[in-house]
Amino acid sequence: MISALNQEETRALLSEARTGRLGCVVAGGPYIVPVNYVFHDDRIYIHSLPGRKVDALRANPRACLQVDDVQDAYHWRSVIAFGRYEEVTDDGERQWAMRRLLARFPHLTPVESVPVHDGQSSVILFRIDVEEMTGVGEK
Amino acid sequence: MISALNQEETRALLSEARTGRLGCVVAGGPYIVPVNYVFHDDRIYIHSLPGRKVDALRANPRACLQVDDVQDAYHWRSVIAFGRYEEVTDDGERQWAMRRLLARFPHLTPVESVPVHDGQSSVILFRIDVEEMTGVGEK
Repeated sequence: MISALNQEETRALLSEARTGRLGCVVAGGPYIVPVNYVFHDDRIYIHSLPGRKVDALRANPRACLQVDDVQDAYHWRSVIAFGRYEEVTDDGERQWAMRRLLARFPHLTPVESVPVHDGQSSVILFRIDVEEMTGVGEK
Repeated sequence: MISALNQEETRALLSEARTGRLGCVVAGGPYIVPVNYVFHDDRIYIHSLPGRKVDALRANPRACLQVDDVQDAYHWRSVIAFGRYEEVTDDGERQWAMRRLLARFPHLTPVESVPVHDGQSSVILFRIDVEEMTGVGEK
């Protein structure tokens, strides 16, 4: 039976999952990119090299993250969180978030992990401040 | 090493994958929903019950489909295809596409499979006519 997830179930899936699909609007059309992320306190932390998604989100900060967990055709959960792009510029918050990302994704390349060591890098660390989230699942 | 996929590799991933993430624009913001689909002749066929994504795509037909295949952190491929929403209304094309969808996704519920038998249903069958596709991968 397909039914809505409650807020606790929705947050649980956002906390458990490691990969999500980040959506943004580029020149009036949709754009999606898979990302690793950390979810903490209704904020989604993501790091990125400069490029299309960061340019797009700077121009239009409306973003969403879709996450799912599919066991099989009859047992699955899917969540979408909507919010706004905020670049993380505070040194303390950057270092905290990079440590969390590295702990979860130790395969981050040395270039991507630089901010942990010196706080300087071309890596962009941003967060999506979640304003609304909904989930649905079948079990 | 991360590199662009060529057109053949990009089409191959779109053909192999079963689940993708459909992106559209809802009230100026991004929206993503996981979908099963069939890719044929640069068209992506998707069926849906009426709802938010169909309403959105009727209002703004710009769509994208993102598909990936992640073996592990160092072996993955990801593709995004951009195109336009077109509702499939021709009976012959509807029946052909529903048969292909059912052959690939036999768990479709009886309600969803009705169009195969009588051509009448509230199920919406649409396609994304792909105008641009790009892929990237690491191996």
